[in-house]
Amino acid sequence: MADNKKITLLNSWISPFGIRVRIALAHKGIEYDYKEENLSNKSPLLLQMNPVKKQIPVLIHDGKPVCESMVIVQYIDEVWNQKSPLLPADPCQRAQARFWADFVDKKVYSLGRQLWITTGEALEAAKKEFLDCFKLLEGELGQKPYFGGETLGFVDVALIPFYLWFSALEHCGNFIMVEECPKIVAWAHRCMENDCVSKTLPDLEKAFGFLMEIIKKQRADK
Amino acid sequence: MADNKKITLLNSWISPFGIRVRIALAHKGIEYDYKEENLSNKSPLLLQMNPVKKQIPVLIHDGKPVCESMVIVQYIDEVWNQKSPLLPADPCQRAQARFWADFVDKKVYSLGRQLWITTGEALEAAKKEFLDCFKLLEGELGQKPYFGGETLGFVDVALIPFYLWFSALEHCGNFIMVEECPKIVAWAHRCMENDCVSKTLPDLEKAFGFLMEIIKKQRADK
Repeated sequence: MADNKKITLLNSWISPFGIRVRIALAHKGIEYDYKEENLSNKSPLLLQMNPVKKQIPVLIHDGKPVCESMVIVQYIDEVWNQKSPLLPADPCQRAQARFWADFVDKKVYSLGRQLWITTGEALEAAKKEFLDCFKLLEGELGQKPYFGGETLGFVDVALIPFYLWFSALEHCGNFIMVEECPKIVAWAHRCMENDCVSKTLPDLEKAFGFLMEIIKKQRADK
Repeated sequence: MADNKKITLLNSWISPFGIRVRIALAHKGIEYDYKEENLSNKSPLLLQMNPVKKQIPVLIHDGKPVCESMVIVQYIDEVWNQKSPLLPADPCQRAQARFWADFVDKKVYSLGRQLWITTGEALEAAKKEFLDCFKLLEGELGQKPYFGGETLGFVDVALIPFYLWFSALEHCGNFIMVEECPKIVAWAHRCMENDCVSKTLPDLEKAFGFLMEIIKKQRADK
C-alpha cells in the first residue's frame, strides 16, 4: 500500500525521537527523502507541516504530515502492515507494548535531562530515579531477547535511540550502566545486531562528543 | 470477541482518566464490575494489577490488567471492534486522532492544574496558556460536530471528561469559557447528547463542589 507515494522525513540527526522513525522506516525497508532541520532556524516546511508543535520529526507521506514520533511509528506499522510488524496482533499484547512505550516517553527523556543539568543532591536523586526507571524496564524485558519478544518491536524502537545517551549520562552521573543495568546493555547490543538499528544510529563517539557540548552549555546557562 | 470474559474497572469517580474508560465502555455497550478505589489507601488488587504506576484506571479483562487511560480506550476499541469504532479506519486519520489525544494528554491536565494552584502573574500566564491550548483545539474541531467527525471518536473521549473541570477553572482563572471558546462549549453540549457521555459524567454541580474543596486544600498546602 502507498509505496509509490512520496515520503519525506523532517528530522535532526541527534534526536532520539527522529531516530525512532528512521529505525521504523529502515525496519520496513522504506525509502524516503531526508531533510535535516536546523532547529534554531526551522524551515517554513516544518512550521507548515507541524504548526501545533513546530517540532521534528515529521513524516510527510503523499503531502500529508504525521507528527509525534510514536504516532509516526504506529502509522508506519499500519500503512506498511504486511512486513515485519512492530506491534503484536493480540490486543492485550498491543496494550502492553503501548503502555511501556508511553512509560519510556514520559520517563527516559525527562530523567535523562535531569542528569544533564543537575548537580549535588539533586543529581544523586535524578540518578536514582533514572536507574530505577531502567530497572523497571529490565523487569519488563525479563528473559526475552527483545521487549517485542523474539524480534525487535514497538518498545524496542521507542527505547533504543536513548542508547546514544548512555556514555554522556554515565559521565554526568558517575555510574557505569553495565554494572547497574546489565540486561539493558545486553539488550542494546542485541538491538545493534539489527541493520535497521546499527545503520541508523549515529556514531556513538560522535554523539557523545556532541551531547557533552550541549550539556556543558546547558550547565553554563543554568 | 471476549464478551463472556469477566471485566472489572478499578477507578476513582472524579478522575477524568477513569471517565474516559467508562465512556468508551458505555459507547460499546460493555457491562463490567466497577470498583471505586480509595486513592489514599489503594487496594492490594490495584497495587498488584498496576505495580509500575500504582494508578487508576485499570481495566482487568479475563484476569489481565490494562493500564493508562488512552491505552485502555484503544484496547476497548480493538477488542470490541465490531461496534461503534472510536478510531477511524484510515491510517492517516488514525494518526491525526492519536496526535490530538496525545496533545490533550500532555496539555489539558497539567495546564488545568496550574490554574488551580497559581496566583497573581503566574495565574495570568497559566490562564493564557490554558485558553491558547483550547483555541488550538477549536481550530482542530473546525466545523465538524465532533473531533471524530460526524460521531463521537477517540479525541472526544480523551477530552470530554475535562468538561467537569470547566466551572472550577472559570472560577480560579476568572474567565467565562463560553466567551473564550464558544465552539468548545457547544461541542461539550453536543457530547452530552450522547448517553455514553451524559450517563457517565458525574453530576456537574457535585464535581464542582468536590474540585473546589481540593483546590482550596492544595492552595492552603502550597
